[in-house]
Amino acid sequence: MEQARKGIITDAMKRVASKEKIDTENLRISVAQGTVVIPANINHKHLDPIGIGKGLTIKVNANIGTSLDRADIDEELLKLSAAINAKADAIMDLSTGGDITKIRQSILQASNIPVGTVPIYQAAVETAGNLGGIIRLTPDILFEAVEAQAQDGVDFMTVHCGITLNALQRLRLQGRTTDIVSRGGAFLTAWMLHHKKENPFYEHFERLLSIARKYDITLSLGDALRPGSLADATDRAQIQELLTLGELTERAWEAGVQVMIEGPGHVPMDQVEANVIMQKKLCNGAPFYVLGPLVTDIAAGYDHIACAIGGAIAGMAGADFLCYVTPAEHLRLPSVEDVKEGVIANRIAAHAADIARGNKRAIKWDLEMSQARKALDWKKQISLSIDPLKAKAYRASSKPSSDEVCTMCGEFCAIKIVRDYFSS
Amino acid sequence: MEQARKGIITDAMKRVASKEKIDTENLRISVAQGTVVIPANINHKHLDPIGIGKGLTIKVNANIGTSLDRADIDEELLKLSAAINAKADAIMDLSTGGDITKIRQSILQASNIPVGTVPIYQAAVETAGNLGGIIRLTPDILFEAVEAQAQDGVDFMTVHCGITLNALQRLRLQGRTTDIVSRGGAFLTAWMLHHKKENPFYEHFERLLSIARKYDITLSLGDALRPGSLADATDRAQIQELLTLGELTERAWEAGVQVMIEGPGHVPMDQVEANVIMQKKLCNGAPFYVLGPLVTDIAAGYDHIACAIGGAIAGMAGADFLCYVTPAEHLRLPSVEDVKEGVIANRIAAHAADIARGNKRAIKWDLEMSQARKALDWKKQISLSIDPLKAKAYRASSKPSSDEVCTMCGEFCAIKIVRDYFSS
Repeated sequence: MEQARKGIITDAMKRVASKEKIDTENLRISVAQGTVVIPANINHKHLDPIGIGKGLTIKVNANIGTSLDRADIDEELLKLSAAINAKADAIMDLSTGGDITKIRQSILQASNIPVGTVPIYQAAVETAGNLGGIIRLTPDILFEAVEAQAQDGVDFMTVHCGITLNALQRLRLQGRTTDIVSRGGAFLTAWMLHHKKENPFYEHFERLLSIARKYDITLSLGDALRPGSLADATDRAQIQELLTLGELTERAWEAGVQVMIEGPGHVPMDQVEANVIMQKKLCNGAPFYVLGPLVTDIAAGYDHIACAIGGAIAGMAGADFLCYVTPAEHLRLPSVEDVKEGVIANRIAAHAADIARGNKRAIKWDLEMSQARKALDWKKQISLSIDPLKAKAYRASSKPSSDEVCTMCGEFCAIKIVRDYFSS
Repeated sequence: MEQARKGIITDAMKRVASKEKIDTENLRISVAQGTVVIPANINHKHLDPIGIGKGLTIKVNANIGTSLDRADIDEELLKLSAAINAKADAIMDLSTGGDITKIRQSILQASNIPVGTVPIYQAAVETAGNLGGIIRLTPDILFEAVEAQAQDGVDFMTVHCGITLNALQRLRLQGRTTDIVSRGGAFLTAWMLHHKKENPFYEHFERLLSIARKYDITLSLGDALRPGSLADATDRAQIQELLTLGELTERAWEAGVQVMIEGPGHVPMDQVEANVIMQKKLCNGAPFYVLGPLVTDIAAGYDHIACAIGGAIAGMAGADFLCYVTPAEHLRLPSVEDVKEGVIANRIAAHAADIARGNKRAIKWDLEMSQARKALDWKKQISLSIDPLKAKAYRASSKPSSDEVCTMCGEFCAIKIVRDYFSS
């Protein structure tokens, strides 16, 4: 961000501009203004950087990582491959079980896409293990975890800076159906209410900024008070936190630190656009990173679909970065297959929104597919599908009588029937 | 419709009002005005009627049926069961292969939900088989097929009445990426252009009305010119047809015949709402039955997700009836599993839109789910899921260390951590 402000075009900016097919100077201006971030830790080797924000295609993140109940490093590396093969733009390692440091380092080494983490997870889990309880966490332990992860090469970090004593008070006054569903938010809440002290990420925000600046980490300002149910969406607690995140965005920009804002959560369809408009306005156009939003609470087993609906609408309204939700959400840690399903569903949402936003490359992709359909060119249709292997397998599983058609309509293919009349 | 106008409340109206928990008299008024339809052929025994339209929950239709390349009556009956088990509100039998009459009669006998068909399929397929080509179809053959299917008990029928010579001329003048992708539309186009004659469904619309009136069939005015690609969406050909459908709606209402309007198709997200507003305005509030809309052309293998996004947005904007699309769309005839996936994806879309439209029962379902989540009541969470069997299997596949949590977060469950602080 500092180099962009000085008018310097870095290699990362050149690479991003070339991938997005946009003007490098325009990208530099957006990075300088903070409306685009390029998460790229100076210590993450072999990173192929991506840009997130205004004027760029919408990106998709896949969450992987162990839990206490299931911690297998090989499985996590398989999830990483599945996410990359399904063309996720970034991944987050949310491990809370096993050797967290080793897992993160292995993922960083294996990943050429940006890697994000939530440092408070490791800090809290290790404090619970070593000192007998999350509440024994100290600001020093917390910031040491941040620094250690920064040094490893983490490109972006979720830090729940906006959950303050004030916001918790507002939450209590108001009441909620599902209180707090953010893990990091829950750790901090337990700590703050026990010690009756302010959130260390908020109180020592400068310390966070200095680490971020040193390694060029993008701060992802977390939404600890995101709604965990439709009933809690767009409530006073959520918006109170967002106001604070807006202020912190300005402070980060003053320090030359890249920032994005995390957003809800569970949100009824008719409130999604308003949430995006509010975030953009309150946070001066900083990129918006949405988890979901899930447009219903009852889609357990199919939350990737509830997420695709909400993500697409958010994307059309201006959200920049979609965090996937998998079919396993609310039920279990995702499997390798869940990771793939989650990435594809969110890529469909991101792509549909890119089209609605007028992105020319996205529109061209669909046009080429439709031209291949008209030409009954199946090879091209398969290769242009979002998941060519699945499309190929589906077609192969049900052989049509003629190579030109499929078994849906057989020889009564509408395109085939009218082709002669319209080609004349 | 006639009885509703006379102020008579039929058993079907009572049943629908009771299921929707709305006032019977209000429902009667909506049926009389045409903003709600209750597809219920007098010959469909054991039918549990549903209402479609203004003020009611959004309904989901599943298309099943054979093709020339794959015609197995037992498989179709399994698809019917899969659709009913997944809680589809209606099904359409689109068979074009095998003994079409027998398949339809078997489906009608086995189905307690409304059954729809597209009579021109059977007329065209049998004409092609018996007389050597679709173009040998005559208006008499067409209307005999309509009457035979009506007598069997079909509750609603797609009839492509709006594709006129005028509309085809407009289509030719304009040009299109994928011309015509409606099978019924393609049959009619081939016939009209070959004979240089008007669409018999349009020319003899009164004959259609008299059959519909006799059996109390709901006419679903088909969109033969629906876009088959995003590039063709909301074009002059599509809107020309919609104008005609608006006129025919008025004529059907004058004859006391229930009508709904079919809509696109492939539509970019940012045009979906406009399509719904236009249909409602141009067709005087007649129920809108949308196929998809698919918000991208490239999701082959995952078109149920592209459809869920478009269906949810259409539903929020006022669409009343969502025709599912399965993962098999554009690739093959759907399997039993595809049918289930398609129904669930569209039910999620319909439900999310019901919530956005303020439906109290829909909102309550989500609230109960979230309260069960807060209470860590897994039994209730499973039973409130859209597909309890899948939710149960997912949870069982990855056993948590404690019954209270799941393997996503294990003992670091956010809800569990903060529970004590907020219950005090």
